Amino acid sequence: MSTAIIVLAAGQGTRMASDRPKVLHEVAHAPLLHHVLRAAAALAPERTVVVVGTGAEAVAGAARALDPRAETALQAERLGTAHAVAQARPALDGFAGDALVLYGDTPFVRPETLQAIRAARADGAAVVVLGFEAADPSGYGRLITGADGALQAIVEHKDASAAQRAIRLCNSGVVCADAPTLFGLIEAVGNDNAKGEFYLTDIVAIARARGLSCRAVTCDEAETLGVNSRADLARAEATFQTAARARAMAGGATLTAPDTVFLAHDTRLGRDVTVEPFVTFGPGVTVADGARIRAYSHLEGAHVAEAAVVGPYARLRPGAQVGPRARIGNFVEVKAAEIAEGAKVNHLSYIGDASVGAGANIGAGTITCNYDGVFKHRTAVGAGAFIGSNSALVAPVRIADGGYVASGSVVTIDVGAGDLAIARARQVNKPGLGARMVARLKALKQKGTG
Amino acid sequence: MSTAIIVLAAGQGTRMASDRPKVLHEVAHAPLLHHVLRAAAALAPERTVVVVGTGAEAVAGAARALDPRAETALQAERLGTAHAVAQARPALDGFAGDALVLYGDTPFVRPETLQAIRAARADGAAVVVLGFEAADPSGYGRLITGADGALQAIVEHKDASAAQRAIRLCNSGVVCADAPTLFGLIEAVGNDNAKGEFYLTDIVAIARARGLSCRAVTCDEAETLGVNSRADLARAEATFQTAARARAMAGGATLTAPDTVFLAHDTRLGRDVTVEPFVTFGPGVTVADGARIRAYSHLEGAHVAEAAVVGPYARLRPGAQVGPRARIGNFVEVKAAEIAEGAKVNHLSYIGDASVGAGANIGAGTITCNYDGVFKHRTAVGAGAFIGSNSALVAPVRIADGGYVASGSVVTIDVGAGDLAIARARQVNKPGLGARMVARLKALKQKGTG
Amino acid sequence: MSTAIIVLAAGQGTRMASDRPKVLHEVAHAPLLHHVLRAAAALAPERTVVVVGTGAEAVAGAARALDPRAETALQAERLGTAHAVAQARPALDGFAGDALVLYGDTPFVRPETLQAIRAARADGAAVVVLGFEAADPSGYGRLITGADGALQAIVEHKDASAAQRAIRLCNSGVVCADAPTLFGLIEAVGNDNAKGEFYLTDIVAIARARGLSCRAVTCDEAETLGVNSRADLARAEATFQTAARARAMAGGATLTAPDTVFLAHDTRLGRDVTVEPFVTFGPGVTVADGARIRAYSHLEGAHVAEAAVVGPYARLRPGAQVGPRARIGNFVEVKAAEIAEGAKVNHLSYIGDASVGAGANIGAGTITCNYDGVFKHRTAVGAGAFIGSNSALVAPVRIADGGYVASGSVVTIDVGAGDLAIARARQVNKPGLGARMVARLKALKQKGTG
Repeated sequence: MSTAIIVLAAGQGTRMASDRPKVLHEVAHAPLLHHVLRAAAALAPERTVVVVGTGAEAVAGAARALDPRAETALQAERLGTAHAVAQARPALDGFAGDALVLYGDTPFVRPETLQAIRAARADGAAVVVLGFEAADPSGYGRLITGADGALQAIVEHKDASAAQRAIRLCNSGVVCADAPTLFGLIEAVGNDNAKGEFYLTDIVAIARARGLSCRAVTCDEAETLGVNSRADLARAEATFQTAARARAMAGGATLTAPDTVFLAHDTRLGRDVTVEPFVTFGPGVTVADGARIRAYSHLEGAHVAEAAVVGPYARLRPGAQVGPRARIGNFVEVKAAEIAEGAKVNHLSYIGDASVGAGANIGAGTITCNYDGVFKHRTAVGAGAFIGSNSALVAPVRIADGGYVASGSVVTIDVGAGDLAIARARQVNKPGLGARMVARLKALKQKGTG
Repeated sequence: MSTAIIVLAAGQGTRMASDRPKVLHEVAHAPLLHHVLRAAAALAPERTVVVVGTGAEAVAGAARALDPRAETALQAERLGTAHAVAQARPALDGFAGDALVLYGDTPFVRPETLQAIRAARADGAAVVVLGFEAADPSGYGRLITGADGALQAIVEHKDASAAQRAIRLCNSGVVCADAPTLFGLIEAVGNDNAKGEFYLTDIVAIARARGLSCRAVTCDEAETLGVNSRADLARAEATFQTAARARAMAGGATLTAPDTVFLAHDTRLGRDVTVEPFVTFGPGVTVADGARIRAYSHLEGAHVAEAAVVGPYARLRPGAQVGPRARIGNFVEVKAAEIAEGAKVNHLSYIGDASVGAGANIGAGTITCNYDGVFKHRTAVGAGAFIGSNSALVAPVRIADGGYVASGSVVTIDVGAGDLAIARARQVNKPGLGARMVARLKALKQKGTG
Repeated sequence: MSTAIIVLAAGQGTRMASDRPKVLHEVAHAPLLHHVLRAAAALAPERTVVVVGTGAEAVAGAARALDPRAETALQAERLGTAHAVAQARPALDGFAGDALVLYGDTPFVRPETLQAIRAARADGAAVVVLGFEAADPSGYGRLITGADGALQAIVEHKDASAAQRAIRLCNSGVVCADAPTLFGLIEAVGNDNAKGEFYLTDIVAIARARGLSCRAVTCDEAETLGVNSRADLARAEATFQTAARARAMAGGATLTAPDTVFLAHDTRLGRDVTVEPFVTFGPGVTVADGARIRAYSHLEGAHVAEAAVVGPYARLRPGAQVGPRARIGNFVEVKAAEIAEGAKVNHLSYIGDASVGAGANIGAGTITCNYDGVFKHRTAVGAGAFIGSNSALVAPVRIADGGYVASGSVVTIDVGAGDLAIARARQVNKPGLGARMVARLKALKQKGTG
């Protein structure tokens, strides 16, 4: 059965108190919307229609950034979920497969759950609704199921009898039906209710009245966590992180203090990787077996090879490639630079737009001067080279293999293999002048305040 | 009704195991005592008397630092709460308004609660006692109330009947009465008890015996959290932080991981501000709309303007003013410096006692040398100026608009608008000398250890 | 009674998904095995035999690193706990004292508990088994005790009756008996069970059958926490940290946010020490009274004297000795260096293999260039010396008392007492050249992309 995904992503999210559309707020460095689209991708949908409204262009852009084939439908007014789904109808005109309705602010429905919905459809249910067993069902619509497991009705909390309120199976809002059926049902939905909105929920009663079979599929309550406020967003982040940390540990990484490690949606940690407390992973990071990420390190778009040691207080920015057994130390920033096997950048350095050869030693306080105000230039340091502490390497510049730069040098000219470069001023000592100067300054100060 | 606040702040706090008076231990960068005085300020009290004892001078100083009109009364011996209140009597001699007794180690009673106490007084109760519904009342004195809501007695836990122990309304110790009445009741309090102390609690029984009406006002248990140990202090900090984070999120700030963000009592975050994990706010910080505070940043006494980006690993010290869309990057310290709109200080720099003009670019590793051992001097960098990496700006010095400093320079002379300054040594390369030097050193090492 | 400790440490720990032997995974910077050996040391055991298997050499090495007298016995095959204990028999041949069996992956059994086991033995019990009251006993073997307190049997969960399953006293696996008795009992253990393993647990039934008295000693469930997965390891770390933080606070240290402070097994904090959020202690750190460790600091092998202030973002590495009232500021690394009383290293510096005299001031961005590619050399800065910002001190070098180094200098020659050293290039300003250069570069860029 071919499938179309309809993602409702038009909501304003007033309680977010934000100028940003709600579905573009991020969890684990990805917009909520991307979490939904990634889960849906497991169904290999033929079509994806994102219903946009608030910040329509930004939301559409974000959808296409992940899935260039994603289409959008504009919901100009917010008249309820059924109305939102109806906006996808023109885009899906003639589409005869299944339509699965998901929510852009509900990021955690799992691919396995979506497969179960598809299986229920394949098993003959005309309309499938996703439910969850709520720890506290108060406020949710209840799914009323019969002895045969069929879904008989969805009853809103306020309309529920005492017996119905005891039911803990609640409505997630996710529904699936074949597209013509879905749109046919939606046509019949009315808005004769307190808010005057068209509710997607109502299609179950309409389907039943038309003699169509309905079925509930159940997922974990955590999958249905929706984001309506910044507090919800923080809870969603925490939910993601708890699961991601557990996966990393099960895979053989030690997280000394898992609660203090923040992973991105795509972080990959190898076996016997150690991650110390207070480490942050932005998107695009891989860490190979046996590497150690020390405390207070911040990585994004970086690769750390086997048995390398990074940090504490290391920042790897996009394009940082740390080689096997290499060492990036404290207060060091690496950007768009390969640090080859066994090389060391241990202290207070900025290595940007550079390559550092195997076994090279970059002294404390070394700065690659990669920017002239207009262009970025590259620095190349050869294998086994030694860059003395507090040196500045003014790019473009090349220190060949085994080149040796004296401490405190400003290097502007290439250094040949095995050559020594020195670029610092001659020292002059002036006997007693330090003491006299300080005495004079102190006298001045005394006068100033006396 | 005019009001006098009496704050009991004489206690030694033995369990703190500290040389510092208990009420001067801090929560959210303010002494416990200040939290109490700030809440009381909502009543616009006519008089404030702080009863001091342990570390009397330090406590009095802290009180006056916040409220110069605060008076102090010395409790030379610690003979109980009633005795403590009695020490405030001379200071309030002739004061005919209400006296409200608060505790310097109980920082969270809310202004709204104090208003409710005042309302109960205005409603005719002679004595008002603040109570709270305890989750676990064991150990607390119980407030016994009648059908008419009147407070009939306070019964200590050890003296309570089984029925009374089932009561969860407990005594916070906060009381209010008009001052002559309060001091008159206190006169009658005895010390015929196990510890030989004069308990303020006893005034309720005395008042009832004198036919005075007593009433209980109720607050949340969390408001009555008292600090008697470092563990309590940590709990108080956690309680404050949880509430402050929730307020920040409700106001439209994203806290990626709220549990890892520490706010001060006066932190102000705008709408669509993002605060990444592991950020610490000291006192006096404001962050305008749309700014981003990246991970591991530490701010105190600083303003961050709209859409500016700070961090990761940025430290803003008092007097740091970060302009709109400006950028403070990693391992950068800014102190007493204005960084104008769109300026960038991205890496490993110290900018102190300085101004940086709009759109200026401060290269990696730049240091303002602001101290000569006696005086601090200022550095001025003009709009659009470019400071090459690893430069030292020796203050007092001025780089005019569009001035350009070559990488690795030590600038001691003012640079004119659009001028180029260069202050670095000429480089000399010595062919093969690097390799020979290292070989010689290695040989030496081998000899040394061989 | 003389005691031999038998520590079972041969397990592979498959669920750790690690190449490292399980007992060498660390909690609070010490291998699990060391926690066990340290607790056992409270009994002053005459003999310690570690039964090794997986990674035998590494485990044996770790045991001897802590206790040079530790012996090892190899368990070549993993055939159960009784089989493991049996491997220690040859080593203890002729030893007539008590044998206490502990587990290398169960790090938290307290010395007091081991003393209680010894007391039970002294009191006449032939076999003592350590039990714990489980919050959820499901899955554990139950200890069946009689009215006289004697241990009658250990019943595995799957074999237990409903009444037995209601028992919450569970088997920890720790046992003690005199060595000949223990080995005699073990001889009788069979492996007629589902896994075909020899279980130590079975000795209780055998002992009872032989008429030997058995007794249970009880400890807290937390003491019996075993580590079988990375998630367990994280839980063990959290358990350790919670207890260690509480101890530090009870001793008079303020931990602003205890959950964000990580202590090592041997961290010592004095009275009125303040530890701000996000601080990490590696092994070997002592902090004297009244010192403040500011946020994001990382200390290992370091001593901080009274009233010193360290951080934020300070890294003290092994051999850092921070004197009274000294100040180590942000983005500063100190290694193998004494910073004397009242000296200041406030910003962006690396001080390695050095001594800094009392009251000296080390300017921002100062680097000790301590490595020439082969040797490490020392830097000595005298009392009251002033090192201007962005200076490089090329070791070996000595700045005498009151020496003054001009900002931006590269110091290679010793500086005498009160002398001024200056080692920087003369500045040249080229009128208008900065602006012309930038204009030319921008034109080039435009051409390149135009």
